[in-house]
Amino acid sequence: MFPKYDVIVVGAGHAGCEAAASAATMGSKVLLITMNMTTIAQMSCNPAMGGVAKGQIVREIDALGGLSGIVSDKSMIQFRMLNMSKGPAMWSPRTQNDRMRFTEEWRLSLERVPNIDFWQEMVKELLVKNNRVVGVKTSLGLEIEAKSVVLTNGTFLNGKIHIGEKQFGGGRTGEGAATGLTEQLIQLGLESGRMKTGTPPRVDGRSLDYSKMEEQKGDENPSKFSYTDTKPLDQQVSCWITYTNDAVHEELQKGFDKSPMFQGRIKGLGPRYCPSIEDKINRFAERDRHQIFVEPEGWNTVEIYVNGFSTSLPEDIQYKAIKKIPGFENVRMFRPGYAIEYDFFPPTQLKLSLETKQLENLFFAGQINGTTGYEEAACQGLMAGINAHNKAHDKEPFILKRSEAYIGVLIDDLINKGTQEPYRMFTSRAEYRILLRQDNADLRLTELGHKIGLASDERLQRVQSKKEGIEKLLTGLKKVKVDPKIINSELEGLNTATIKEKVPVINLLRRPQIGINELAQIDTSVKQLLNRYDKEIQEQVEVHVKYETYIEREQKIAEKIGSLEEYKIKGDFDYDRVKALSAEAREKLKRIKPETIGQASRISGVSPSDISVLTIYMGK
Amino acid sequence: MFPKYDVIVVGAGHAGCEAAASAATMGSKVLLITMNMTTIAQMSCNPAMGGVAKGQIVREIDALGGLSGIVSDKSMIQFRMLNMSKGPAMWSPRTQNDRMRFTEEWRLSLERVPNIDFWQEMVKELLVKNNRVVGVKTSLGLEIEAKSVVLTNGTFLNGKIHIGEKQFGGGRTGEGAATGLTEQLIQLGLESGRMKTGTPPRVDGRSLDYSKMEEQKGDENPSKFSYTDTKPLDQQVSCWITYTNDAVHEELQKGFDKSPMFQGRIKGLGPRYCPSIEDKINRFAERDRHQIFVEPEGWNTVEIYVNGFSTSLPEDIQYKAIKKIPGFENVRMFRPGYAIEYDFFPPTQLKLSLETKQLENLFFAGQINGTTGYEEAACQGLMAGINAHNKAHDKEPFILKRSEAYIGVLIDDLINKGTQEPYRMFTSRAEYRILLRQDNADLRLTELGHKIGLASDERLQRVQSKKEGIEKLLTGLKKVKVDPKIINSELEGLNTATIKEKVPVINLLRRPQIGINELAQIDTSVKQLLNRYDKEIQEQVEVHVKYETYIEREQKIAEKIGSLEEYKIKGDFDYDRVKALSAEAREKLKRIKPETIGQASRISGVSPSDISVLTIYMGK
Ligand SMILES: Cc1cc2nc3c(=O)[nH]c(=O)nc-3n(C[C@H](O)[C@H](O)[C@H](O)COP(=O)(O)OP(=O)(O)OC[C@H]3O[C@@H](n4cnc5c(N)ncnc54)[C@H](O)[C@@H]3O)c2cc1C
Ligand SMILES: Cc1cc2nc3c(=O)[nH]c(=O)nc-3n(C[C@H](O)[C@H](O)[C@H](O)COP(=O)(O)OP(=O)(O)OC[C@H]3O[C@@H](n4cnc5c(N)ncnc54)[C@H](O)[C@@H]3O)c2cc1C
Repeated sequence: MFPKYDVIVVGAGHAGCEAAASAATMGSKVLLITMNMTTIAQMSCNPAMGGVAKGQIVREIDALGGLSGIVSDKSMIQFRMLNMSKGPAMWSPRTQNDRMRFTEEWRLSLERVPNIDFWQEMVKELLVKNNRVVGVKTSLGLEIEAKSVVLTNGTFLNGKIHIGEKQFGGGRTGEGAATGLTEQLIQLGLESGRMKTGTPPRVDGRSLDYSKMEEQKGDENPSKFSYTDTKPLDQQVSCWITYTNDAVHEELQKGFDKSPMFQGRIKGLGPRYCPSIEDKINRFAERDRHQIFVEPEGWNTVEIYVNGFSTSLPEDIQYKAIKKIPGFENVRMFRPGYAIEYDFFPPTQLKLSLETKQLENLFFAGQINGTTGYEEAACQGLMAGINAHNKAHDKEPFILKRSEAYIGVLIDDLINKGTQEPYRMFTSRAEYRILLRQDNADLRLTELGHKIGLASDERLQRVQSKKEGIEKLLTGLKKVKVDPKIINSELEGLNTATIKEKVPVINLLRRPQIGINELAQIDTSVKQLLNRYDKEIQEQVEVHVKYETYIEREQKIAEKIGSLEEYKIKGDFDYDRVKALSAEAREKLKRIKPETIGQASRISGVSPSDISVLTIYMGK
Repeated sequence: MFPKYDVIVVGAGHAGCEAAASAATMGSKVLLITMNMTTIAQMSCNPAMGGVAKGQIVREIDALGGLSGIVSDKSMIQFRMLNMSKGPAMWSPRTQNDRMRFTEEWRLSLERVPNIDFWQEMVKELLVKNNRVVGVKTSLGLEIEAKSVVLTNGTFLNGKIHIGEKQFGGGRTGEGAATGLTEQLIQLGLESGRMKTGTPPRVDGRSLDYSKMEEQKGDENPSKFSYTDTKPLDQQVSCWITYTNDAVHEELQKGFDKSPMFQGRIKGLGPRYCPSIEDKINRFAERDRHQIFVEPEGWNTVEIYVNGFSTSLPEDIQYKAIKKIPGFENVRMFRPGYAIEYDFFPPTQLKLSLETKQLENLFFAGQINGTTGYEEAACQGLMAGINAHNKAHDKEPFILKRSEAYIGVLIDDLINKGTQEPYRMFTSRAEYRILLRQDNADLRLTELGHKIGLASDERLQRVQSKKEGIEKLLTGLKKVKVDPKIINSELEGLNTATIKEKVPVINLLRRPQIGINELAQIDTSVKQLLNRYDKEIQEQVEVHVKYETYIEREQKIAEKIGSLEEYKIKGDFDYDRVKALSAEAREKLKRIKPETIGQASRISGVSPSDISVLTIYMGK
């Protein structure tokens, strides 16, 4: 009934969709199996993509040839570049999305990839021969063969939903849990754990009083995620801000004795940085209010997402408390918030390619690896799809370095440090933040994406001409000189020192008071020069010139550390023979089996002295 | 947590959506509770609305002020008027719809009705006091009060899905079943039964070879359902026709020993007129092929609905058989077909208002009453919503006569005859077919809909000015005379007798060779007259003139029979005292408790002589 596939992807969440798309675009014959085709790429929680560090990831996915950026652009209802007051390493794009449009755009995008077949059903089991995965078995008992299998089960594995003292099985509200797989994987020698996450109630926008809230509009000149020719918005929908208060907190506290979290019914750890509202008032008892973002779920629907009010307290408590938020006095709820517990597999059981160490040809991506967030899931899906394709075609794994991409940081963190609680990305996790900017993801990654057969020729050409433009403009700015007679009065107006003699324009751009826009105003010849280049190119040049020293410094460190990555460690390396290693380091190294000295150096518990011991032993 | 509602509607299928919209538009405070808000008005089976007799129902719903027609128009991808070669009583509008758009349009339309609140959860129980329903209890244990409750659970009550020898609980593929309600209703004295229905596999349009099929385009001048100002399509998507053959049938037969239907695992009766493909080859062994309509699921998706191939045979049999259909040689399936068994409540337990006789304030609508089809469900929902509102506001029930609407026929049939198998509408069920045309639903019903507070003023004005136009044009056609000298040559050209002297135009229109279009060509003064009126009005006049005698005859019969409907029978009437009744009639009358002599006359088992006995006894 089915042909033999190159790659089977289980689950069509954010991870599964990117996995199917990347493997198929690279040429694999792909089957995407998911429990319900009407919930493809369903946003389980907030209707938004990107944000701090996450926005960078979406840009990276896009630069490599993934689809999350394009789908987000096509379904956005608002765009904001966060952190614009900080340095460019911190600028982070974020969209508010139409939930239905997002799902639909993903579905249609996948249908447009010729190599993807679809099957709607639950996968119950893996087909395994000699520790190699060779396919899957569905709930109807169908056996389907593939060279590689990617599991992206999200929050569905033995999912259990909690609201107050009630609990019931489910992978998401209104959807059943997935059973069978965890048990089989444990039998096959993998270790699993339990995590939890939560979501706020949804409410009827018609019942809110927005006059009591602050409006949060989209950017005046909205940008977008994708480097392709998706369109920025010309109309946007606003979000609204309001705050909890003592009265809200008091109502919530009345339900603490029925909280599944505080009463220990939920065993799994939740995301520290997306805490529930009860968690917030418990942990930060000194704060008398918490911010609530009132986010519309789409262009036309009245459904509202109450960001910041995630909770698993009893529904009547939720209702009584939410009513005390300014603007929510007459609120009508559509459904209560809830918490969900699910199985995950500690990611230290994976190789950097996201293949499991235990079972060949089996890849894990997304929430199943202990992460949280659509963007984190999507980028793992992309990488797992690429590597599942490469594996099926006997090609080398495709691995991104920590200095190349947030995606590299994320996977390297997971594999080497594992995670006790749902892992989400932060800029602070990256040591090369000034290199890993949202604005240069294409310059960093598109050539790599093209080389592996994912990013299109068109994307490559776009990047190449951008690179050329940057070079030319830089050269131009070095060549063109400005004349004190002409520009000194302008400089005074900008509160910056005047010049004595002609200087190359580029020198002025290094001054904090002068950006590209100011340059254009000082001198018409400079303006003419600039006008020959796109805004994108001008921005790159500006960042490049202004942050040159920082960039160079990080690049040097990256190169130095990078050399450690060249030192490969054989898979069967015998750490017991290296007597000088600390006991902890030896144990961790044996378990995690790093592929390079660089990787070894990032394992928690492996000290710099352990690294020198190793390096000396290996004769490097 | 909830206010007290006027009306609670359980389930947001076609019935539930119309019920919520009608009750709320009439002024009730309505709560719509459904298990999953992302599947509001989901089309469980084929992505199409209308068709023979069903199209008339959609027009009637629209004329009364319901929303199915508007939603269908907004989401249609193809329009066809079926049976155009037959008389106007048979003309039946049908749309092919974009499945996702349909759901979305319904959802947004409901959100635009100010009086509807939403709640996403399963209702497990009714709140009952002294045989009156006073609210519902949800799976979380929430108790919500209302003056009336409408149950529209569709195929979800203890739903069980069958594919070959496998079976599992579910209300629709990928969705859970609803439990609790049936058991409680039985305890409360209601009778339940079991029915089944089925759906075909969905396939990937990219894998089909359309060159082997016949194209079926939409109408050249497409019309639409709604009498409001929705837009007809200017672009349409085609369907395709192909056929099964001996090879297909042979493959299917190989699975008969695993068929849940033939092996007796399915107890419920299925829809006779939507049989599964295995049923068709079994029942019509002499036919060597069956027609298959290949229907796209939307504007952009590649998903295809294989109309005519509904099946619950094992999935590998489905696949082997479908591959033998011309054009399907390389087919890729998205999911197998399946059958579903579910609980229904024999509708003889209802009053004409759709309120249950057993439990006051409780209304049933849709598949739960043993019907099948979106249109049948939607119109019951509309009527139940109206009557639930009326009940909550101490108003009289709103009941349509058999001579007023297909909706009247449907409900009257259900209540009086009950149904052993899924009931679907046919034109043959109506005795006043020439009255109940699709083209005059507004003339028949909009005033009624307006009087109860459902149809808007705008709708009423539209109908009134249409009526005036019809009168004026008829008068005009009677007044304006044509001259033999001017028109006789034209008449000859039309192969119809010439005239000797001046005659009123209307006389010509009675001739079969001459329609409105021909009239306009014969004479310029007639053309000028016609041009003053809309196409809609011209059509009405044409039908009116051409079918005058038939229409008048049916009207007379309707009036005669209608007088029986005036004879009310008191609820506590004691049939035992009427000795002359046949035993069967007495038993049926006692059970069904007809509200009028007219209704009594349509109960199967009640003979004309029983009716005269009754009439005489009652002194009429
Ligand atoms: C209630 C809730 C609250 C959340 N809150 C937050 C939050 O506050 N912040 C945040 O960053 N993230 C949150 N998330 C997490 C976010 O939704 C996930 O990180 C993201 O969706 C993970 O993507 P994924 O692709 O790994 O899995 P999912 O999006 O969960 O998709 C999994 C897919 O796999 C399918 N599937 C599962 N098992 C099988 C099987 N055996 N066979 C076939 N198909 C299968 C499912 O049908 C589904 O389509 C929340 C999630 C939930 C459910
Ligand atoms: C597999 C299948 C095949 C079909 N084939 C055909 C066909 O060939 N021809 C044909 O004419 N018709 C067919 N139908 C029938 C058609 O889908 C129905 O007639 C129509 O959808 C009935 O509308 P409804 O509103 O009564 O119920 P549904 O459309 O079934 O909607 C019921 C709604 O109620 C909700 N619900 C149920 N129980 C509860 C509860 N306890 N609490 C809260 N919400 C609840 C559900 O979530 C759902 O939204 C088929 C249906 C199915 C499932």
